[in-house]
Amino acid sequence: MFLRLFICVFVSLCGLFNSKKMESIKQRRTIRKYADKDVPEELLNRLLEEAARTQTMGNLQLYSVVVTRDAEMKKKLAPAHFNQPMVTQAPVVLTICADYNRTSEWCKNRDAEPGYDNLLSFMNAATDALLFTQTFSVLAEEEGLGLCYLGTTVYMPQTIIDVLQLPRLVMPVATLTVGYPDENPAQSDRLPLASFVHQETYKNYDKELIDKYYSYKESLPENKEFVAINKKQTLAQVFAEIRYTKRDNEAMSATLLETLKRQGFLD
Amino acid sequence: MFLRLFICVFVSLCGLFNSKKMESIKQRRTIRKYADKDVPEELLNRLLEEAARTQTMGNLQLYSVVVTRDAEMKKKLAPAHFNQPMVTQAPVVLTICADYNRTSEWCKNRDAEPGYDNLLSFMNAATDALLFTQTFSVLAEEEGLGLCYLGTTVYMPQTIIDVLQLPRLVMPVATLTVGYPDENPAQSDRLPLASFVHQETYKNYDKELIDKYYSYKESLPENKEFVAINKKQTLAQVFAEIRYTKRDNEAMSATLLETLKRQGFLD
Repeated sequence: MFLRLFICVFVSLCGLFNSKKMESIKQRRTIRKYADKDVPEELLNRLLEEAARTQTMGNLQLYSVVVTRDAEMKKKLAPAHFNQPMVTQAPVVLTICADYNRTSEWCKNRDAEPGYDNLLSFMNAATDALLFTQTFSVLAEEEGLGLCYLGTTVYMPQTIIDVLQLPRLVMPVATLTVGYPDENPAQSDRLPLASFVHQETYKNYDKELIDKYYSYKESLPENKEFVAINKKQTLAQVFAEIRYTKRDNEAMSATLLETLKRQGFLD
Repeated sequence: MFLRLFICVFVSLCGLFNSKKMESIKQRRTIRKYADKDVPEELLNRLLEEAARTQTMGNLQLYSVVVTRDAEMKKKLAPAHFNQPMVTQAPVVLTICADYNRTSEWCKNRDAEPGYDNLLSFMNAATDALLFTQTFSVLAEEEGLGLCYLGTTVYMPQTIIDVLQLPRLVMPVATLTVGYPDENPAQSDRLPLASFVHQETYKNYDKELIDKYYSYKESLPENKEFVAINKKQTLAQVFAEIRYTKRDNEAMSATLLETLKRQGFLD
C-alpha cells in the first residue's frame, strides 16, 4: 500500500520535473527593469564557467567577457547603447567580445606565428562569442535572472572599445544587462515555424507566403498600435522607415568596417 | 511518521532534480558518431519552434534553417565541410542562415523599402542566427541528441549556397549535424575562468599570465600527444602552423568577402 503510494508520488514528481525542463526558454521574455538586488559574484562566475562548456573552434575559446559593476563605468558605456536605462540600472553589464588577442599572445609566447588579423578570424571569434553568450543566457534565465540583449553593441563599438580598453584583435559583439526581474512583460509573438524552416532547399517567398506568414503578427493589437503611434500604414514601414533605416544601416556599416580595420581584423 | 518520510523523500527528490537541471550543458561533448536511428520530424520541429523563443533583433527573426535529410543532398554538402563523415552519417544536417531576404520580401509587399544590403545588416542577421543555433543546441542536447557544430560553414560558403539554393541576402553561418549519440568521448578541457573574464577593463596578457592560463591545457597527455604526432614543439604551433594558418585564413577571408558581396551584403 505505502509502496504503491510511494511509486505513485515518485512517478508524478518525475513527470512534474520533466515537464518543467527548460521551461525558462519557452517562457522567456526580455527583462529591462531590475530589482534592487545584486547578482552574487559567485553565481555569476558559476554561470560563466558553465557557459564555457559551449562548443568552441579548435577548443580555443575565442572570446572574452568584460564584467561591469561600477556605476561610473556603466555611465560611460550607456551612450554606446543610446542611453537605454537598462545599462545604468542593471546590477551587472556583460560585454562579450570576439577575442583573438589572447590566442595570438599565447602563440607569440610559444614560438608560433599567429595569423588571425583577418576577416575569417573575426567571424570565427564572433561565432564563438555569440554561442557562448547564448548558453550563458539560457543558464542565467533558468536560474531566475532577467536579461536584455543589446544589439547596439556593434552600432557604436568604438566607445565600448575605449571605455573597456579593448586591445587589437578584440571586438565587442554582444552586451547583456543582467539582474533579477522587476517586471513581467507579455511574451512577444513569433513567426510560424514553416516561415523560417526549409526542407532540403530554400523556398523563396511570394506574396501569398508573405501574407500567410506575417498576417498573425500584423493582426496583433500591440503591433497595430505600434503602426498607429508611428503614423505609418504598415508594420514593415515602421521597421524600414523608422527603426532600422537604410541610411542608418549604411552609416553604421561604414563605422563597423572602420572599427574592424582599427581592431586589426581587416586590411 | 509517514508524513515525515514523505517530506523527506520529496525534499531529496527536489534536490536530485534541481542538481540535474541543465546537467546536459555541464556534461556536453561534441558527438561525431550517430546511432542508426532517425530523429523524428515532430521532435525536430518542436525543438526548432522552442529555439525560436531566443531574443531576436526587433523581433524580426533574421534567420532561416535548411533541413537536410536526403542522402544525395548530404553528399553534395559534404565537400563544403572537408568531407567530414558526420555530414553524410548524421540523420539530420541543419544549415542555419543569416536571412534578411524574408524580411526584405515582407517590406516589398508592404509598401516599405528595405535597406538591408549592407554589412551591419549581415552582422545583425548572423547574430540572430547564431543565438538561435545555440538555444537549439542546448535544447537538443538536453533531449538526448548529439551534435557536431561545423565551423567550416563560412570557409567554402558558395558550395552550400548553390546546393541549398540560397538567394541574395541569405548567408549560411552555422551547420549542425544531429542524431542520437553512438559514442561517448571524453570531455575536452577548458581555460580557467579568470583567463577569459575581465573585471571593469580588459587586462592584457603578459608572459606570466599566458603561462598561468595555458599550462594546464599544455600539460594534458592528449594535448602532448597532439603536439608529438604533428611533429611540433608547442601546442600553439599545431594551431598556428597546421590547423588554422595565416595563409589559409587569408585565402578564406578573401572568399568570405567575395561571398558577402555576391549575397548582397557588401558593396
